[in-house]
Amino acid sequence: MKTLLKNARILTMKNDRIFFGHVVVEDNRIVEVGPAVNIYADYDKVIECEGNLLMPGFKNAHTHSAMTFLRSKADDSNLQDWLFKEIFPREANLRPGCVRELTKVAILEYLTSGTTAAFDMYFYPEEFEETANKFGFRLVNLLMYDKTARPVKKCLELYKANKNEDGLVKYVIGMHSEYTPTEEMFETTKQLLDKTKSPFYTHLSEISKEVEDCIFKRGMTPMEFFDSMHFFDRGGAIFHGVYLSDDDIEIIKKRDVVVVSNPSSNMKLASGVAEIKKLLANKVTVALGTDGPASNNALDMFREMYLVTGLQKLILKDPVSIPAYEVLKMATVNGAKAMGLKDCDTLEPGKLADIIMIDLRRPSMQPLNNIINNVVYAGSKDVIKMTMINGKVLYYNNEFFIGEDINQIYKKVQQLTDELSVIKK
Amino acid sequence: MKTLLKNARILTMKNDRIFFGHVVVEDNRIVEVGPAVNIYADYDKVIECEGNLLMPGFKNAHTHSAMTFLRSKADDSNLQDWLFKEIFPREANLRPGCVRELTKVAILEYLTSGTTAAFDMYFYPEEFEETANKFGFRLVNLLMYDKTARPVKKCLELYKANKNEDGLVKYVIGMHSEYTPTEEMFETTKQLLDKTKSPFYTHLSEISKEVEDCIFKRGMTPMEFFDSMHFFDRGGAIFHGVYLSDDDIEIIKKRDVVVVSNPSSNMKLASGVAEIKKLLANKVTVALGTDGPASNNALDMFREMYLVTGLQKLILKDPVSIPAYEVLKMATVNGAKAMGLKDCDTLEPGKLADIIMIDLRRPSMQPLNNIINNVVYAGSKDVIKMTMINGKVLYYNNEFFIGEDINQIYKKVQQLTDELSVIKK
Repeated sequence: MKTLLKNARILTMKNDRIFFGHVVVEDNRIVEVGPAVNIYADYDKVIECEGNLLMPGFKNAHTHSAMTFLRSKADDSNLQDWLFKEIFPREANLRPGCVRELTKVAILEYLTSGTTAAFDMYFYPEEFEETANKFGFRLVNLLMYDKTARPVKKCLELYKANKNEDGLVKYVIGMHSEYTPTEEMFETTKQLLDKTKSPFYTHLSEISKEVEDCIFKRGMTPMEFFDSMHFFDRGGAIFHGVYLSDDDIEIIKKRDVVVVSNPSSNMKLASGVAEIKKLLANKVTVALGTDGPASNNALDMFREMYLVTGLQKLILKDPVSIPAYEVLKMATVNGAKAMGLKDCDTLEPGKLADIIMIDLRRPSMQPLNNIINNVVYAGSKDVIKMTMINGKVLYYNNEFFIGEDINQIYKKVQQLTDELSVIKK
Repeated sequence: MKTLLKNARILTMKNDRIFFGHVVVEDNRIVEVGPAVNIYADYDKVIECEGNLLMPGFKNAHTHSAMTFLRSKADDSNLQDWLFKEIFPREANLRPGCVRELTKVAILEYLTSGTTAAFDMYFYPEEFEETANKFGFRLVNLLMYDKTARPVKKCLELYKANKNEDGLVKYVIGMHSEYTPTEEMFETTKQLLDKTKSPFYTHLSEISKEVEDCIFKRGMTPMEFFDSMHFFDRGGAIFHGVYLSDDDIEIIKKRDVVVVSNPSSNMKLASGVAEIKKLLANKVTVALGTDGPASNNALDMFREMYLVTGLQKLILKDPVSIPAYEVLKMATVNGAKAMGLKDCDTLEPGKLADIIMIDLRRPSMQPLNNIINNVVYAGSKDVIKMTMINGKVLYYNNEFFIGEDINQIYKKVQQLTDELSVIKK
């Protein structure tokens, strides 16, 4: 299967230059990029891009996709009430089969926002694996050891999915955070890390109380705690990282850990603003995530891009930070690094064909003064004309090509949502 | 011409309840709303809403639409450089005929984001009037006296447009700010206000330096200054209002002045965050605006809605403020009040038919836990299925019905933009 995407503006994300040309995709990989492609050769499919922009898809480097059932369920309430009265009791209702359905709505939204891969962290990861494979969506699933739900054997079994290099779904090892697990969970997770050679991933320093409690309890920050146990010896990423000390940043640099920032979620839950400019000045790799739809409430990388730079400008009283291309790197190349997707970062021959087309004829993209700035500062879901993952067009001109009727998906998810919403006394 | 919009969810914005029903529009006004409408009567046009949401269109209560030519032209630079090196020299290139074209791209974007009326402030207001009338867009134009460009006679002439009550365009009187006009401009504007009985509108207390300079120069805040001269005796609105004192707020209450907040622009230019929660606690009416595309860069009321509540949560460390329905009121009813559009605020018989349809089958709107919260917290341009202004559908299913080819508009605007971008030495 050979597809030609012709007459496009192309932003490879190897650098910030945009040029006119074509892209050839063979099966799930890019085989040619540039102005010199033979557009008269024999192709199974030709997509006329009409001068619109092709670029690598966005990587949502931290999310809890199945939480779609909690979207708009508990907004405008304080954090404790939100978590303990609204979120946890409803999550306790989750049963086998739910996550498989709930993640479908999330994938649809990812496709509408040009997100070609998500780094997910939730219950029943194997169900999301199933849905992602069925729809053709690229997924990195965080595998969290749990004595009952996911014992060591089960973890290693799921981890095997990684053996298939071109597979859409892979697993990495992590933990929820420093403050929820038992001692046994830390020990077993460390053993799993050593056995699998996986990098490590966790929520870390999201709110100030988390850091203060950890210092009180352990005499160390969460970052220092995990590093003292050699969890980050093979790198990985931390989610949020709003409250990081200078020593934390030193560890992050030494271990080449990526900081995945979630500006919308941190804003909406009133957690704070991560010190992105300082991290960049320290040459730390920063990626972006939406967090789950319970706290954001959209799964929209355009929102994260706008906010990650907007909030730095506001907080630092410095409209210069952070430039748009730097932001676009966070949403693409750096996200790929955080997720260990080394073949999904740029548009180059040999890379996986995770490509989006930005419709430059949407009014917000006009005039073409500076296309990169238009995308970062004026972009929104309506400019996504095409989302291609692994060489397959899954979304084009507002239509989905995922092999299922979206109205049936919505019906089923609404049913489940209504059932799960009943809080048991 | 009688149009039936049938089988919709309806949010009138008279209150926060959503019900199933139909809307009948005759010419440019709503004549029936509710479940009891006779859907079998004779209609010239029937729009099947398939359970999607009908609500009043968004009112963009502060913008500079023609600045589309400066979109993405000078991002990530400091305020002084931005204004004096990038914006002003290019604005100096504007000549008759430019604003007529440049505002077209803005109207297109307003339509994609469900904005049915804009409150504009810019050079050549009569050219925007022409374009708005041509496309069918509702516009309130701020008329600013200028000895050369708009002498008193010209102002009064333009003001006459208001005589036609059902007209799409009306004028009100205002000034740029406290810090730019000459003494003569203050005096003449006051005479114009008294002559026309217009409420008054101005940029006010956008940055802290503006307030400090005014206190230093006049011994008063900008709000106190204008009030001391009785500019606000017939109400009106202030744009931005980021730095308001308690005394300012007392004046605002006494004069029933609306505060039009522009959270994105204030964030991106690092100006600060308006104290919205405090204003609401003081029963001040707050509306929302995008400001111009040079500073935002999108003309997107979804962005403003998300930010006006998100930034309060963040700055006040209080995830409870401000509830979604309150935000939706700012973007609709309160905007209408700010703009003096008393017939455009709610969906009721007798009101003007400025109606939008939200596509509840877009993934971000699912599941239907809380539709109002979905719109405010997860909405983006892609959920706008229809934008109707003055009884006419101007945008439907991503297509524009404005009587002009959008590619021709883009071509012309690009040409102008390229010409205007050349800064003369």
